[in-house]
Amino acid sequence: GTAPKITGPVVANMPWQDRPEDSNDVMWRFDQNPIMGPREIPCALGVYNSGLLPYEGGFIGVFRVDHMDTVPFLHLGYSKDAVNWDVEHEPIPFVREDGTPSIIQWAYDPRLVEIEGVYYISWCNSLDGHGPTIGLAATTDFKNFTQLENAFLPFNRNGVLFPKKFDGRFAMFSRPSDNGHTPFGDIFLSYSPDMKYWGEHRWVMGADFKHGWWQGVKIGAGSIPIETSEGWLSFYHGVTSTCNGNIYSVGASLHDLKDPTIVLKRSYTALLAPEMDYEVSGRVPNVVFPCAALADAETGRIAVYYGAADTHMGIAFTTIDDVMEYLNNEKPREHCS
Amino acid sequence: GTAPKITGPVVANMPWQDRPEDSNDVMWRFDQNPIMGPREIPCALGVYNSGLLPYEGGFIGVFRVDHMDTVPFLHLGYSKDAVNWDVEHEPIPFVREDGTPSIIQWAYDPRLVEIEGVYYISWCNSLDGHGPTIGLAATTDFKNFTQLENAFLPFNRNGVLFPKKFDGRFAMFSRPSDNGHTPFGDIFLSYSPDMKYWGEHRWVMGADFKHGWWQGVKIGAGSIPIETSEGWLSFYHGVTSTCNGNIYSVGASLHDLKDPTIVLKRSYTALLAPEMDYEVSGRVPNVVFPCAALADAETGRIAVYYGAADTHMGIAFTTIDDVMEYLNNEKPREHCS
Amino acid sequence: GTAPKITGPVVANMPWQDRPEDSNDVMWRFDQNPIMGPREIPCALGVYNSGLLPYEGGFIGVFRVDHMDTVPFLHLGYSKDAVNWDVEHEPIPFVREDGTPSIIQWAYDPRLVEIEGVYYISWCNSLDGHGPTIGLAATTDFKNFTQLENAFLPFNRNGVLFPKKFDGRFAMFSRPSDNGHTPFGDIFLSYSPDMKYWGEHRWVMGADFKHGWWQGVKIGAGSIPIETSEGWLSFYHGVTSTCNGNIYSVGASLHDLKDPTIVLKRSYTALLAPEMDYEVSGRVPNVVFPCAALADAETGRIAVYYGAADTHMGIAFTTIDDVMEYLNNEKPREHCS
Amino acid sequence: GTAPKITGPVVANMPWQDRPEDSNDVMWRFDQNPIMGPREIPCALGVYNSGLLPYEGGFIGVFRVDHMDTVPFLHLGYSKDAVNWDVEHEPIPFVREDGTPSIIQWAYDPRLVEIEGVYYISWCNSLDGHGPTIGLAATTDFKNFTQLENAFLPFNRNGVLFPKKFDGRFAMFSRPSDNGHTPFGDIFLSYSPDMKYWGEHRWVMGADFKHGWWQGVKIGAGSIPIETSEGWLSFYHGVTSTCNGNIYSVGASLHDLKDPTIVLKRSYTALLAPEMDYEVSGRVPNVVFPCAALADAETGRIAVYYGAADTHMGIAFTTIDDVMEYLNNEKPREHCS
Amino acid sequence: GTAPKITGPVVANMPWQDRPEDSNDVMWRFDQNPIMGPREIPCALGVYNSGLLPYEGGFIGVFRVDHMDTVPFLHLGYSKDAVNWDVEHEPIPFVREDGTPSIIQWAYDPRLVEIEGVYYISWCNSLDGHGPTIGLAATTDFKNFTQLENAFLPFNRNGVLFPKKFDGRFAMFSRPSDNGHTPFGDIFLSYSPDMKYWGEHRWVMGADFKHGWWQGVKIGAGSIPIETSEGWLSFYHGVTSTCNGNIYSVGASLHDLKDPTIVLKRSYTALLAPEMDYEVSGRVPNVVFPCAALADAETGRIAVYYGAADTHMGIAFTTIDDVMEYLNNEKPREHCS
Amino acid sequence: GTAPKITGPVVANMPWQDRPEDSNDVMWRFDQNPIMGPREIPCALGVYNSGLLPYEGGFIGVFRVDHMDTVPFLHLGYSKDAVNWDVEHEPIPFVREDGTPSIIQWAYDPRLVEIEGVYYISWCNSLDGHGPTIGLAATTDFKNFTQLENAFLPFNRNGVLFPKKFDGRFAMFSRPSDNGHTPFGDIFLSYSPDMKYWGEHRWVMGADFKHGWWQGVKIGAGSIPIETSEGWLSFYHGVTSTCNGNIYSVGASLHDLKDPTIVLKRSYTALLAPEMDYEVSGRVPNVVFPCAALADAETGRIAVYYGAADTHMGIAFTTIDDVMEYLNNEKPREHCS
Repeated sequence: GTAPKITGPVVANMPWQDRPEDSNDVMWRFDQNPIMGPREIPCALGVYNSGLLPYEGGFIGVFRVDHMDTVPFLHLGYSKDAVNWDVEHEPIPFVREDGTPSIIQWAYDPRLVEIEGVYYISWCNSLDGHGPTIGLAATTDFKNFTQLENAFLPFNRNGVLFPKKFDGRFAMFSRPSDNGHTPFGDIFLSYSPDMKYWGEHRWVMGADFKHGWWQGVKIGAGSIPIETSEGWLSFYHGVTSTCNGNIYSVGASLHDLKDPTIVLKRSYTALLAPEMDYEVSGRVPNVVFPCAALADAETGRIAVYYGAADTHMGIAFTTIDDVMEYLNNEKPREHCS
Repeated sequence: GTAPKITGPVVANMPWQDRPEDSNDVMWRFDQNPIMGPREIPCALGVYNSGLLPYEGGFIGVFRVDHMDTVPFLHLGYSKDAVNWDVEHEPIPFVREDGTPSIIQWAYDPRLVEIEGVYYISWCNSLDGHGPTIGLAATTDFKNFTQLENAFLPFNRNGVLFPKKFDGRFAMFSRPSDNGHTPFGDIFLSYSPDMKYWGEHRWVMGADFKHGWWQGVKIGAGSIPIETSEGWLSFYHGVTSTCNGNIYSVGASLHDLKDPTIVLKRSYTALLAPEMDYEVSGRVPNVVFPCAALADAETGRIAVYYGAADTHMGIAFTTIDDVMEYLNNEKPREHCS
Repeated sequence: GTAPKITGPVVANMPWQDRPEDSNDVMWRFDQNPIMGPREIPCALGVYNSGLLPYEGGFIGVFRVDHMDTVPFLHLGYSKDAVNWDVEHEPIPFVREDGTPSIIQWAYDPRLVEIEGVYYISWCNSLDGHGPTIGLAATTDFKNFTQLENAFLPFNRNGVLFPKKFDGRFAMFSRPSDNGHTPFGDIFLSYSPDMKYWGEHRWVMGADFKHGWWQGVKIGAGSIPIETSEGWLSFYHGVTSTCNGNIYSVGASLHDLKDPTIVLKRSYTALLAPEMDYEVSGRVPNVVFPCAALADAETGRIAVYYGAADTHMGIAFTTIDDVMEYLNNEKPREHCS
Repeated sequence: GTAPKITGPVVANMPWQDRPEDSNDVMWRFDQNPIMGPREIPCALGVYNSGLLPYEGGFIGVFRVDHMDTVPFLHLGYSKDAVNWDVEHEPIPFVREDGTPSIIQWAYDPRLVEIEGVYYISWCNSLDGHGPTIGLAATTDFKNFTQLENAFLPFNRNGVLFPKKFDGRFAMFSRPSDNGHTPFGDIFLSYSPDMKYWGEHRWVMGADFKHGWWQGVKIGAGSIPIETSEGWLSFYHGVTSTCNGNIYSVGASLHDLKDPTIVLKRSYTALLAPEMDYEVSGRVPNVVFPCAALADAETGRIAVYYGAADTHMGIAFTTIDDVMEYLNNEKPREHCS
Repeated sequence: GTAPKITGPVVANMPWQDRPEDSNDVMWRFDQNPIMGPREIPCALGVYNSGLLPYEGGFIGVFRVDHMDTVPFLHLGYSKDAVNWDVEHEPIPFVREDGTPSIIQWAYDPRLVEIEGVYYISWCNSLDGHGPTIGLAATTDFKNFTQLENAFLPFNRNGVLFPKKFDGRFAMFSRPSDNGHTPFGDIFLSYSPDMKYWGEHRWVMGADFKHGWWQGVKIGAGSIPIETSEGWLSFYHGVTSTCNGNIYSVGASLHDLKDPTIVLKRSYTALLAPEMDYEVSGRVPNVVFPCAALADAETGRIAVYYGAADTHMGIAFTTIDDVMEYLNNEKPREHCS
Repeated sequence: GTAPKITGPVVANMPWQDRPEDSNDVMWRFDQNPIMGPREIPCALGVYNSGLLPYEGGFIGVFRVDHMDTVPFLHLGYSKDAVNWDVEHEPIPFVREDGTPSIIQWAYDPRLVEIEGVYYISWCNSLDGHGPTIGLAATTDFKNFTQLENAFLPFNRNGVLFPKKFDGRFAMFSRPSDNGHTPFGDIFLSYSPDMKYWGEHRWVMGADFKHGWWQGVKIGAGSIPIETSEGWLSFYHGVTSTCNGNIYSVGASLHDLKDPTIVLKRSYTALLAPEMDYEVSGRVPNVVFPCAALADAETGRIAVYYGAADTHMGIAFTTIDDVMEYLNNEKPREHCS
């Protein structure tokens, strides 16, 4: 067969390091990790779980910033190299569609996507103080940000938009939740003709000990899906529970290009699991949580951005070839429940 | 002021009994209660929590029937007097929009409403085995039933459609839930232009000990809202928890005619609470749960149909005058948390 | 030895029935049970768990009345025979010590005691909406009721005062709790020189499966302790949990006359357990809950008043001889955990 | 094919009533139900969940008797007609294998079986106060009862012995549990060469919403399996949970004659579910719990004895033909999770 | 207005460091942190959460020492500079008021205060093995320690005495709890005329997500309140819960000088949150927990002593000017629930 | 008396370091700790909680290796010095007794023991996907590994075999558990004549706050018991729970040589508690978990191997003299609940 290809822009200036010689891992860490963390800006207890994109020759990002009251907000940030970032000290000033200021009670785990020339931010948003759901906003210039209707009823988290429409409709992964820390969670897909009304909800894939303990408790979509010749490539998080708390790891899934509810491949092992001090310790120990990825169509390089211990931000590298070889070759355990 | 009026059809043949002489209650029971229950049809452990409407001079209903495997399904039923019912022995055979048979895994707590000449059933439906959400179906003849898209992502229960559109959009109350028996729950409103995509989700009113202990744990919409000169009149259920389980009671709320998210009045006391043997004992003890109401515009009479102990069906009576006098005059406790 | 004696007033007109001939039970039910219940007054979902005393040739009581919003309040009631009661339709209008009206947010499970000519009511009271604790009030004429300081910090329930002082100090049993339905609970004793400041807190006796499963989960003091020649005789409740909820039963304990923290005797079996329909079914199924007792020094007769299923009120009879014979003769199981 | 046959003794004097004419049920109730209950003997709060067998021309049983301290013990009982029983007032005086008295801390849900001329009792027993497990005792004359070693480590309940050996080994169904009321539970099989050491543990069948909601939470073996021409016929209990507690129902399974871990048939619907007052209300509401069955090889009649609401004992009838026709013809729901 | 002043002694020799030049924080850490920790004395798994005061030209402290069995006890310690401490190897030998030795089962989180020339220790104490409550002891010479009556019934923690009396009465903050790790908790105030009987219990302030997520789950008083010209300044802890455990942070509140139940100011953000390795990792990760403060009236300097990760002890600095400017200027989030 | 002696082989080449001069601890750490950890072999997220023995002049071990899917398997390893290990990259290929390959779904926390010339591995094994129980396998050459029957019904963990038989029967400690992370747990003993059928189950010792908080929640056997002149010496783990998770520590118990259910001594304090970074942080923070020990009969030296934070492996040293002196001299706290 032919080699797998990333369908998308060339991002020649994205960060990159080759796999260390002594490693066989499918995904490997940036040696300057963590690239960001507490006190990145003075008021920040942590900067992590954030979305970013190439923009005007450099990069732009929407960052989760936990303020000193532990309340998270969305801040804009700029970078030339996607490693060193200037993060604004004030949260993004969203306005409503009628131009009045929008009240953001709290906002976390943003994703950033471009769809047909418009940039959309999706995040976990408070529905007027009555539970978490998926907040949405649009911008074309990263100066004016219009907050749209929340996509769903509570309780929902981890809303991730596709960068393309399907039959003229927007598509979004999300994870229905409960009103607490949610000891369960599967990935669903929903469609919208207009970013306002959503429907045709379908279950996509579930938490499942048989796919590996690391994803036995809950899973949630992570990075914006990457279009490839083989399908939509998604880096998602999986959670297991131990005698002393949860562990969040990173996996990959491949979805049919026309119908992303069809799961073509799904990783049985974690591609990245908490191992480094800044992943194992922090405000929420033992968390690696993917929220964004840069992918270069020319080289097939992929840089996954992930939150570490709800405190820091890290980068892990892989290539389309590495991921596809891994997904194509792995076999399920005979049993694993 | 002028007397409150029900805005709707004359339903002269609806069941009715005047308030007993020795009672001051806002709502009083039918003396033939329970009107339906276990073994109403041979396979039924219970018949309860059902929707009904006047239809072709008599009445038609969609009934929750718990089969011998405890799995609930929707059965059609007919009555001349809305007291004595013929319930079909087989569940309603829904078809999908493409004409193929629809697989109903389980279905419970249906509501039945007419909107612009089409009859819609909403119920708690399994999203392909991945959690409860609001199922929807349409019929014009009660012979052909088309199952539509589920309205929301899981987890949701108690979806109740309004009988009118708002600015051309359908409107539905629902109660976001979790994946279990849900120890919380508020009423939200969502809109849809087409019964397929839903959005503009708003919180309407919440469980609240300060509005009376009986509705301190969770609440959910019950009967189809009744249009009146004063607003939309809704009979809803409220739940409190005791040292030995929950108690479900019936309350009333009044909503703005144009914007039903505006709560004009809300009952501080329960209008109906479990008192009779068939309400206090049964498969789920201490439950009165409203799902339907008949209202006669001429006389102002209202008959609320309610499930009792998840086993039987009962009727309770009131009038628009009684309810409005009660809602207009009651005062909150100074404190009640 | 000499026969045990009740140390107290002659209450010749208290209700009484001899033990049925076919019964060997230590305690037996009044055949007119339940003597009170829902709709005893129009607004009442239940009347139960109440305190009462002989008064001016008849009897007076402070009743727990659950209003239609399920919120409980304290109502005064009068009776000539302690069986048929006139209960006032409005709650007792407490005033603060400075004469201003006292706001009662909710109030339940009152006990009524006379100490040195003053009548005191203790109940489970809301500390300004911040949790349950022991409310206290005093009256000399049952017309003016002065609410005193709450005795303890939250969370506390089942405060029961002794009818005598110990070294000039008031003494009260209570059961420290949590902020929910409390799956644990022991009886403690506290002292106060002035009904305002409380201290010298001592553990008295605990929930304990080894004393019988019926009291393995939690216990709480019930009736005002009865002074006898053998010690203070207390009727308390014990709770066990089953595959389907809790069961509340009645036991007896005997406490040293000078130091009531010393438990001289304690029942291994329940003297009364839910058996009758009005005890097994109701708003809180399977509850018998003692709150008051009448005792006649001349005959040794005792009538225990108990709430049934948080809905009704019942009476059960015994005598000082029966109780003491039972307490003196019973033996512990060898093991029972 | 030939008609199914019960492989066993003729029990001509077992209780029997034909199916009521208006019923299509696979199993129907005795019209004298409940046959036993509280105060069957003076100290009993309930008599239920018991084992019994034909014996010396009449019947003999081992009864769960809940004493007034709620602690359950095993009592012997005799009957001529298996309807009217004389239950002894004192628990069975077990002795250890060395002849010393055995201390029974508590004991419940006994089953009684004859294997090769010896009668064995299995029950839920306290392992010296350190958790429930399966107690065992043997007798040949119902006068001398030798307590054997407990079969398993805690936590276990519902141990049910087969009436025949398999390759010279005893076989027992049981349900591993936890140390509380256990919100899960499957049926396992274990073997023993000597009633002392047990092994070769196999999973047999599990709680499973897809086999009907009534058995979605936990299941447990009930009656001694009945040998038939079609396989071992077992009446077991299944449990579902509602918004207000659990419901226990009765189902049937058919197991391979040589290897009972092979489930040949399993009921999708409950054959008996709580419907009668004495099943719906009681110390543990909504429980029907099978523990014994009489079967007549000549007529194919079967009488299942079941506990009702952890308070009473009832009988339900069926025949081998009825059960097999039902098991052979029923179809699974397409989906039911 | 005039500058805020500390009302109290000059403590010229207290530890001090100016705010680092690159910091805008209201509170900043001592660069020799942690000043104490495991194996400070041989038997100690941790030394933390301790009280201290200026004494005889140096400093004296009562330290929480977790022994090798994890059981905490109170040890005395001495220091010249309040940084380097000599901690005694044996627990403080309390005696009862009658001179007999007092049995301390366990004791943790002591606070130390001087009131009218007597030193009082308050701590979380076992009420004879029946739950945690507030233990109290008095000394005038730090050689003889008299244990007083426990202040309250269980369950209570974080008892903090005021250094002055109010109308001749002692005053104490405390936090009613449950019998476990308590997922809730507000600060109350109680009074006592004699350190023996306590009453007039008032709610002061509560856990509240709207005051910042960091204090949304529970709060508790920390250091002895510091008298200032503006009111009583209290450093307290607030707790939030994450996907992987709790985070304890430090906040500040200002209370009316005459009536400390009146909260004049309360911090919306945490002044100190776990950021350093010794705060993020340890036996209880992510804890900073204030228990004591030194304040110098002349300079306005304040040194807050806090436990870190239930393992170490640290110091953080601020000034009365910094705290008051912060409390005076901060604004609430518009919404934050 | 005479000095205590280890009854067993001389293991002259076992790792050893004398107690550091500044330490009084009963047990002290190897200064090369951790000796093993993540990426010990490429696929390993952690290597820990493993069994080992002297073998053919060197050492052999069975290691818990957590693969990248977080699923644990058993790998063989070899060492000359018991410090530096070669661990095989593939799991041990068990075969069934009939020679067919055995499917291991997951396997963790192995112990390795020699009994009468055969090596046995016991571990926590999946009973065909229906819960954890004790898996067993035998080998004589560490090339062919025969998987035996699982010892018990689920749910069980921490099965530890004795190196000698008792009256011809194998003996095993185990800890009955539940189907989750089990917030309780005691040590039991069971016997087997043949490693196939198990019985005579006895409770040995329990989790108990009165023996020190560190072992108040659950305990479990750890290393293979060491035969000594004083009794069987067992290093076990104890667990306590904090405001932020559990802490696992190491204790010691001494059991009667003939009847190991008799506990002669039991440590009140932990001999080893999490203190080092690699114990306090990791995939499961705050865990030290003993699984193996080497003991030299000549010198009395003991090296305990323990898992650290479910990530690393460490060694701690002691001697039979040190342990026995400690066990003989320690006194219980007067009270410690």
